[in-house]
Amino acid sequence: MTPAAGPVVTIEDITAAAERIAGHVVRTPLVPYPEAEPGRPLWFKPESLQPSGAFKLRGAFNAILQRLDDARARGVVTHSSGNHARAVAWVARELDLRATIVIPDAAPAVKVEAVRALGAEVVIVAPQDRDSRAFELAAEHGYVMIPPYDDAAIVAGQGTAGLEIAADLPGLVAVLVPVSGGGLIGGIATAVKALSPGTRVIGVEPELAADATESFRTGQRVSWTPEQTYRTIADGLRTTSVGEIPWRQIRAYVDDVITVSEDEIRDGVRRLASGARLVAEPSGAVPFAAYLHRADELGVDGSVVAVVSGGNLAMDTLARIIDPAS
Amino acid sequence: MTPAAGPVVTIEDITAAAERIAGHVVRTPLVPYPEAEPGRPLWFKPESLQPSGAFKLRGAFNAILQRLDDARARGVVTHSSGNHARAVAWVARELDLRATIVIPDAAPAVKVEAVRALGAEVVIVAPQDRDSRAFELAAEHGYVMIPPYDDAAIVAGQGTAGLEIAADLPGLVAVLVPVSGGGLIGGIATAVKALSPGTRVIGVEPELAADATESFRTGQRVSWTPEQTYRTIADGLRTTSVGEIPWRQIRAYVDDVITVSEDEIRDGVRRLASGARLVAEPSGAVPFAAYLHRADELGVDGSVVAVVSGGNLAMDTLARIIDPAS
Repeated sequence: MTPAAGPVVTIEDITAAAERIAGHVVRTPLVPYPEAEPGRPLWFKPESLQPSGAFKLRGAFNAILQRLDDARARGVVTHSSGNHARAVAWVARELDLRATIVIPDAAPAVKVEAVRALGAEVVIVAPQDRDSRAFELAAEHGYVMIPPYDDAAIVAGQGTAGLEIAADLPGLVAVLVPVSGGGLIGGIATAVKALSPGTRVIGVEPELAADATESFRTGQRVSWTPEQTYRTIADGLRTTSVGEIPWRQIRAYVDDVITVSEDEIRDGVRRLASGARLVAEPSGAVPFAAYLHRADELGVDGSVVAVVSGGNLAMDTLARIIDPAS
Repeated sequence: MTPAAGPVVTIEDITAAAERIAGHVVRTPLVPYPEAEPGRPLWFKPESLQPSGAFKLRGAFNAILQRLDDARARGVVTHSSGNHARAVAWVARELDLRATIVIPDAAPAVKVEAVRALGAEVVIVAPQDRDSRAFELAAEHGYVMIPPYDDAAIVAGQGTAGLEIAADLPGLVAVLVPVSGGGLIGGIATAVKALSPGTRVIGVEPELAADATESFRTGQRVSWTPEQTYRTIADGLRTTSVGEIPWRQIRAYVDDVITVSEDEIRDGVRRLASGARLVAEPSGAVPFAAYLHRADELGVDGSVVAVVSGGNLAMDTLARIIDPAS
């Protein structure tokens, strides 16, 4: 892949995005974790409380509002394993647009059904065909493409969560963010480093989908295969490579990327429910899993924020995780 | 019982409480319910996100901070089926006070363990002995009594949730609040009617613990027996009668009190988890159950807030409710 050049998205892009999407998304609070360890107070940024159940609403509103006339005239299309799909479908319903969503066949049924319920047209494909099919549909019908992460407007939108974190907790030592296509961490890192340069921004991935960790360690943006990344329970983090634009932001602003195991992710989901009364999907519990189980690798002393990126999962899956005897 | 006289707690008491407890409790946001019915948009006030997992922290901080010198010198005592116990234990740990908590033997183990984990001394008694034993301990050892609901400082503290609701959602048509001892609804009704006189304040109870509904309908404060009220799954709403001070506030400011069934409560817990990604205990889902299943009785057209009073429950109980097949 191409060598990384400098960052594309600026703090000005993110503050403009924040103004654009205000009133359309929930300004989520920081929620303290009552069972935090001494010396490492922890707050959650519960993006699971967005009406679409995930942070993806920020980027989707920002990208679509910037191209609203085209989107109204021609409709929008995207590809997503779930939460971006749901976000685009939500925005389309709110703004009365036509939306077509390409979803890989391995996506959880609960996420597919939610997209259909919002009135979007769903096209199911094999995981490796998701972007190509979306681009075909865009070319064929003139739909406006709203990419899931490799897009400056999307990254700027996701970064608005970072603005809020930095504003709400001055003196913050570290922010832990899940990594999939890199839109969320790329945006948050850009915002946090601009407002609070001393704060560390650390990405967290499943061991079974650790393409970003490998990219970060080697300095080369690598891809894993869907056969590899689809092994993790964290279905929102199965993207096989970070995008080019997120990668530029990550190279410039992220301090480290580490991994957690599947059991650690399940423990994160369970303790978010029992200790913080938040429903998180496995992907959303990945940063908290690092706080709980990878303190040495994190090397953080002081106040930490763990982003809970989403809370969309089937209730039988949640039941099995929180009560393994069930 | 004595005939009701006028209200005791004023809006000034509540605004003073808000200043006193700021920084000690979470200012919870209103979280929109994405699956609300057309014409009846719904927001949750998730007091489950308080660090003790319930609204009770508001009243406990307000009452104890007002008597801090005595509390430091002599320690505090209370009686509670769970969430007030946990709140007083939390405040005692934060302020470095000695706390003794009398808990009825039917309280859920998860709540008792949480109180012990916070360092409070726990005394287990039969349900009908809870207040008398707490008063005995206060007399014997000089502990400062922090009552669970029949106390002006407690009611004023709980009312701060109402201040926040009225500030965050102007034009609100109705607030739905669970009723047990009446401290929460008494405080919220006082605040909401002062700031937004046109907003209806409606109490919701389990059918199996409907002493407040009967009291409201007859105009006489009645008691049910523990044998009756302990039938409901909503373990936070088993108090056998509203308190005298809450009753005065309820008579002055509450518009109606209605009931929901046990199945409706379970459905509320399930749909809070799946639709709003919030973990609620059964008591906390009671107002939402009324929104879902008692629209005719509520007779509300327009914006509604349902208070989610708490989220402390055992994970195996939650698993059984959200996935009945498990």
